[in-house]
Amino acid sequence: MARIVESVPNFSEGRRSDVVAAIADEVARSGPVRVLDLSSDPDHNRSVLTLAGDPEVVTRALEALVAACVARIDLRSHRGRHPRMGAVDVIPFVPVQGVTMEECVRAARALGERIAARHGLPVYLYEEAATSEGRRDLAAIRKGEFEGFPEKMKDPLWKPDFGPERVHPTAGCVAVGAREFLIAYNINLATRDVEVARRIAKAIRHSSGGLRFVKAMGLLLEDRGLAQVSINMTDFRRTPLHRVFEMVRSEAERYGVAVAGSEIVGLVPQEALLQAAEFHLRLEGFDPGKVFERRLEEAASGSVPAPVGGRPAGPGVPDAR
Amino acid sequence: MARIVESVPNFSEGRRSDVVAAIADEVARSGPVRVLDLSSDPDHNRSVLTLAGDPEVVTRALEALVAACVARIDLRSHRGRHPRMGAVDVIPFVPVQGVTMEECVRAARALGERIAARHGLPVYLYEEAATSEGRRDLAAIRKGEFEGFPEKMKDPLWKPDFGPERVHPTAGCVAVGAREFLIAYNINLATRDVEVARRIAKAIRHSSGGLRFVKAMGLLLEDRGLAQVSINMTDFRRTPLHRVFEMVRSEAERYGVAVAGSEIVGLVPQEALLQAAEFHLRLEGFDPGKVFERRLEEAASGSVPAPVGGRPAGPGVPDAR
Repeated sequence: MARIVESVPNFSEGRRSDVVAAIADEVARSGPVRVLDLSSDPDHNRSVLTLAGDPEVVTRALEALVAACVARIDLRSHRGRHPRMGAVDVIPFVPVQGVTMEECVRAARALGERIAARHGLPVYLYEEAATSEGRRDLAAIRKGEFEGFPEKMKDPLWKPDFGPERVHPTAGCVAVGAREFLIAYNINLATRDVEVARRIAKAIRHSSGGLRFVKAMGLLLEDRGLAQVSINMTDFRRTPLHRVFEMVRSEAERYGVAVAGSEIVGLVPQEALLQAAEFHLRLEGFDPGKVFERRLEEAASGSVPAPVGGRPAGPGVPDAR
Repeated sequence: MARIVESVPNFSEGRRSDVVAAIADEVARSGPVRVLDLSSDPDHNRSVLTLAGDPEVVTRALEALVAACVARIDLRSHRGRHPRMGAVDVIPFVPVQGVTMEECVRAARALGERIAARHGLPVYLYEEAATSEGRRDLAAIRKGEFEGFPEKMKDPLWKPDFGPERVHPTAGCVAVGAREFLIAYNINLATRDVEVARRIAKAIRHSSGGLRFVKAMGLLLEDRGLAQVSINMTDFRRTPLHRVFEMVRSEAERYGVAVAGSEIVGLVPQEALLQAAEFHLRLEGFDPGKVFERRLEEAASGSVPAPVGGRPAGPGVPDAR
């Protein structure tokens, strides 16, 4: 099985499409990395690349990304609605397949050290790669943003993990970390009453007493006239999609409100959806290795798996072959 | 995207493990075919191979299988609990990816013609490859079994589609066809009363007024003390898993019986489980291309997808990157 990490670097350019394209192009040409997605938001003035591949390949792509962004982005003239502290603002490593979180932490630290040395960038390690509890949270690191960092860095508490103790004049600072796969999941309610969505968000999110790996807020979808519980699932293996959905449904019922539907923003790992199928179909002893596509991928040609005793598939109903 | 068909040939040897291994080995060595599974049942005295690959590669593997079985299996001395009419009893082609049913029908006919000529085997085309309605059903073709075929073939109605109008002395006849992916799916009830399972099976199966692509029977799992509805789903795209599950649950409720669980025997296509997740999570506009693994497979390295406007994933909850 191929070793695969995902990385979702965010960089501070979402308006000049030629600059975004040039940066993405240098990433793609760095080696056999796979570029799964590129999303730019002019309002945020920010872009997000989704990369995947072998850890070494992804690391090389990220080095190319940092060089391209440092050369092309000047934060002194950058304005946008999303908070940011760097030309490359944040770089997470995410274990996907055949790679441990520990390896992602090591990859994040190695990359951080290298880009600090090469570009004179202050680097902060966050989440699983953080060097202290106070640096786990990305929002806490980014607080003050590019403009506030010269002041913030005077505090020894905010000495960077790598690089100089002063902000890069045009490229700011960068956060590099390791985390679980993040699923952006929204549940729409059959009501215009945003207050219901806010109360449900409060009930399900970790920060106010809810599920361990859930962040949530309530908002109104003006165009559809529906209230929405907007959710970030930060560890879908431990807090699965179907549990969040069932909890939202049950909380909504208490207000006499039905769930109109749900949506996944961006990509979702197959496993997260298989978990939901397994739960609702009450599958006994389900093994993802029974998924045809998985078995196909694992089966090497030219070899035969050990014969399995017992009856062939479909024991109950003869003659369906 | 690679073109992939599945084939699940059944052959009449499930006791002599050296013979089964020799046959499977010749199949594996025929070319770059993938052998996903091999199951032997001594009671049935029958084995089932699950093969996948490009249509040409699978066809070559099946030719090797037929040659190996004709050389090693003598039906005159074969006894087993499963009905059979040939050394290789049945060969279905199943479209999986990038291949139409029409192409599978053509592959079945081409293989049938070739093995008839090479081994002097009478070949009957069945299901989607059948040349008349009366030959769609495998059970109808196989009726009479090896021992009854000399008599059966005197009827012009049972003239084979390819090959001689007499049974092969040791290898009998073979059915070659094309069909949709078959899912063997069992739902267990929290009761010992097999009559409940039988009534539910009757309610859900096509033959007695139920769902179009469902075959089902009720039986008792002696060891677990549970009644089971044993199901073959013959077209999961048009009659999906979750609809069958919900119907069984609702019918069981009418007898005051709960669903204890369900199980999938053998392999299941990813799409069948994603359908269930989509249904139960009420996903709006779900696109299987949003599954991370799918996107990964599709993304060529060295290229960048067209930039997507709009906000990056996770619009509602800032700072989760």
